[in-house]
Amino acid sequence: MALIVQKFGGSSVSDAASVKRVAQRIVDTKNAGNDVVVVVSAMGDTTDELIDLANEIAPDAPAREMDILLTAGERISMALLSMAVNSLGVGAHAFTGQQAGLRTDAHYGKASIVGVVPERIARTIKSGAVAIVAGFQGVNDRNDVTTLGRGGSDTTAVALAAALRADVCEIYTDVDGVFSADPRIVPAARQLPYMTHEETLELAAHGAKVLHLRAVEFARKFNVPVHVRSSFSNKEGTWIVDEKTMKDKALEAPVVAGVAHDRSQGKVTITRVPNVPGMASKIFAIVAGIDGNIDMIVQNTAVAAPDVSNLSFTLPKAEVAAVVEALRSHRGELGFGEIRVAEDIGILSVVGAGMRSHSGISAKLFATLGDLGINADMIATSEIRISVVVDPERLDEAARSVHTAFGLDSESEAVVYGGTGR
Amino acid sequence: MALIVQKFGGSSVSDAASVKRVAQRIVDTKNAGNDVVVVVSAMGDTTDELIDLANEIAPDAPAREMDILLTAGERISMALLSMAVNSLGVGAHAFTGQQAGLRTDAHYGKASIVGVVPERIARTIKSGAVAIVAGFQGVNDRNDVTTLGRGGSDTTAVALAAALRADVCEIYTDVDGVFSADPRIVPAARQLPYMTHEETLELAAHGAKVLHLRAVEFARKFNVPVHVRSSFSNKEGTWIVDEKTMKDKALEAPVVAGVAHDRSQGKVTITRVPNVPGMASKIFAIVAGIDGNIDMIVQNTAVAAPDVSNLSFTLPKAEVAAVVEALRSHRGELGFGEIRVAEDIGILSVVGAGMRSHSGISAKLFATLGDLGINADMIATSEIRISVVVDPERLDEAARSVHTAFGLDSESEAVVYGGTGR
Repeated sequence: MALIVQKFGGSSVSDAASVKRVAQRIVDTKNAGNDVVVVVSAMGDTTDELIDLANEIAPDAPAREMDILLTAGERISMALLSMAVNSLGVGAHAFTGQQAGLRTDAHYGKASIVGVVPERIARTIKSGAVAIVAGFQGVNDRNDVTTLGRGGSDTTAVALAAALRADVCEIYTDVDGVFSADPRIVPAARQLPYMTHEETLELAAHGAKVLHLRAVEFARKFNVPVHVRSSFSNKEGTWIVDEKTMKDKALEAPVVAGVAHDRSQGKVTITRVPNVPGMASKIFAIVAGIDGNIDMIVQNTAVAAPDVSNLSFTLPKAEVAAVVEALRSHRGELGFGEIRVAEDIGILSVVGAGMRSHSGISAKLFATLGDLGINADMIATSEIRISVVVDPERLDEAARSVHTAFGLDSESEAVVYGGTGR
Repeated sequence: MALIVQKFGGSSVSDAASVKRVAQRIVDTKNAGNDVVVVVSAMGDTTDELIDLANEIAPDAPAREMDILLTAGERISMALLSMAVNSLGVGAHAFTGQQAGLRTDAHYGKASIVGVVPERIARTIKSGAVAIVAGFQGVNDRNDVTTLGRGGSDTTAVALAAALRADVCEIYTDVDGVFSADPRIVPAARQLPYMTHEETLELAAHGAKVLHLRAVEFARKFNVPVHVRSSFSNKEGTWIVDEKTMKDKALEAPVVAGVAHDRSQGKVTITRVPNVPGMASKIFAIVAGIDGNIDMIVQNTAVAAPDVSNLSFTLPKAEVAAVVEALRSHRGELGFGEIRVAEDIGILSVVGAGMRSHSGISAKLFATLGDLGINADMIATSEIRISVVVDPERLDEAARSVHTAFGLDSESEAVVYGGTGR
C-alpha cells in the first residue's frame, strides 16, 4: 500500500465524460489498495474564458480580484471530480487550497508556497476516503485566495506530496512522458524512462515543456519521486528521481538526457560599457529592480578598445522593452554607447547529468553546429548543461542534428508532444 | 451619509454589460456620500448550468460537494463586479461568505445563518472602499462552504445589514417594487409604497414572490428597513418597515395590503381518524419526522359519527408522496380510514396589518367568493391573514375579484412582475 498523489491537468478534465474517465482511474488506484490524493486543474479552457470575461469588464483588474475570479475554475472541477468518484462507490471529499493547507505569500497571480499544513487531507486519507484538492491556488496570511501562476497545479501536487511524504507524485498528461526533445521539432525524439531532478530543472528552464520549474524545484528540494505519465494509458511514463536512485538502479544513464529549444527569449546588447569596477553589478541591479529575469550573459572586450566592453544578455521577450527603457534612463550615469535589441533569437540547450563526468560534450556540440555552418552567438554553461544562441531560422535543424549526434534518436517516431497543461 | 447594503440578483448581472451598469449604480451611491456594501448573486443562469453539469456526472452528488460547486457562481460574479467598480475609480474588494463572516449550520444546500461577524466588511467600508460580498453562501464550523438555498442572497443582504446596523437594505429587482397582487394574474395590481415586515412575511409565505421568507424574518427580527426597488430606474420602490415606522409616518395604510395566490401546495385528507387525545400530535410528529412543511390544517367531525374525524392539511407538492408513505406505514398504529390526496389546489390569501383593528374582512371575502359561486374548501387565518383553498381553475378569477372588492385596483396596468431572482 502506497500513498499516491495524482495530478490531472485541464485537458484531462475538459468535459463530463473525461471527468468520469479520470474518476475511474482514481477509483482503480484506490481499489488497488493505495491511499490517493488528487490535485486537479480547471476544466479545459475555463481559465482563459474567465480571463477574457475580466478583460471585457476591466482590462486593469486588481490582481487580488483576478485571483478570486480564476480560482472559481478549480472550484468547479474539484467538486465535479469528487462527485464522480463518489458515484463510483469510493468516498471522496473536495478541498480548496485554503482547506488543504496551501499557504502562500501575497503575490497575487504568481504566489509562492510558504508552507503546507495538510491536516484535513491527512485526516481524509486516514478515514479511507480520497482527497480531491484544487490545484493552482493557496491562501495568504490575510485569508485571501492566491494563485500560483501557470503550471501552478504541478507545484501544488509536488508540494502536497512532499508534505504528506507520499511515495510518488504522478503528473498525468496527454503524452506518454518526458521526451529527449520536442517531437514536433525532432521526430526521432524518444521517451526517457528516468531523469534526475537536475536534468528536469535545466530542461524546464530552457524551453522544454516538462513540468513547471517551481514544481521541479520542490521535487528536488524534498526529494519527491515524480512520475510523468499519460492519462490515456497505463504505460510507464518518465520517472524523475534523485541521482542516488539512478545509481541504485544501476541505470545506464546517457551522457546527454535531452535537447531543449527556446524561442521565447530576446537579446539585449549594451555597447561601449566602461570597464570600471562595479559597472556590471550596477547594470544588473537596474534590471533586477524591475524584475527582469536574465538567463545568459556574455561580456566581450575588444583588444583594440580595452577600456570598454560590449555586454549582451538574454531575457524573456515580454520583459525586453521595460529593461531597455530602464537602462536608457540611466545612460548618463552608466556612460555606455548604445543599446541594441535582437527580438528573435533561438536558444539550443543540451542537458545531461553525465556531463559532470564526461568530457568532449562541448567539442561534439560545436563540431555538429560547425558542420551545418550554424554560428553560436552566445554560449553559457552549467555543470550539466550547455546553451547556445543561434539563428532562430535554423534552430529546428540544429536541434535535430544535435539530437542525432548525441545518439538520442529513437527508431520509431514519437507521438506529438503536447505539454502537461497548467 | 448613510450605510447602504445593496443586493443584486442574477438577472441584474447576467452579462458584462449589466455588470458594468450595476457597477455604475454602486459608484453613484458611493459618490453621493454613502458607505456601500454590495451582495451579489451568480450571473444569469450560472447556477442552473452548474446543477445540470453535476447531474450529468453524478445524479446523487453529495450535498457538501454540490455546495462547493454552486458557490463558484458567486465567486465569479463578485470578482467581476469588484473589478468593474474599481475600473470606475472607486476602490472595491470582493469577499466570499466565509471572508465576510457569514457563519452557518452544516445543512448543505439549505443552511441557516447562525451568526455574522463582518469584521473585514466593517474595516473595508471604514477604509473608504466598497465591499462586494458573495450572496447565498456561508461557512460552517468545519470551515466548509454552505449555501443558503433559493433566495439565499436576499437573506445574506438582510443579515449583513442587521450585523452592520445599516440604514437600509436595498433589494434590486427587475420590477419597481412589491405589488398588491401578481400583475400577471391581476392586471390592476398596484405598487405598494410601504408594507410592514409582518405583511411581507405573510405574503411571502403564501405564494407572493416578494422576498425570500428567511430574509423577511431576519428583517423583522432585527428591524432592518428593506427597500425593494428596480435596478433599471431611480424610482422609489416599496419600503418594508416595522409598524411603528408606519404609524410615525402617519401613513393611511389600507386595511388589506395585498392578495397572494399559490399553486405550489397539495392537500392530504386522512379519513376516520379516531377522536382520542394525542392522535393529532402523533400524526404531525410523523410528518415533522420527514421534514414535511404543513401550512393549513382543518379537522371536521361529523355529527353522525362523533368518534372519528376527517383531518386535512396542505403542504408543498414535492413533499406529498413521502408524507403519504410515512403515514400509511403507521396505519395500523393510528387506526385511520384512508388517505386521499388532491395534487392540484389553489390557495388565495388576503393579507393586511389593518385586519387587527378592522372587522368585516372575512365577511367581504366570503361574500365576494359566494357571488362568483366559488367554494372555500379549507379556511385558515392568522392575525393579519385569511387563506382559503379554492378550485385551482378559478384561482385567478377569485384573486382579481377579491383585489377589486378590497379597493386595491390601480387605475393603470402594472408592468409584469418577475420576482427578485435568487
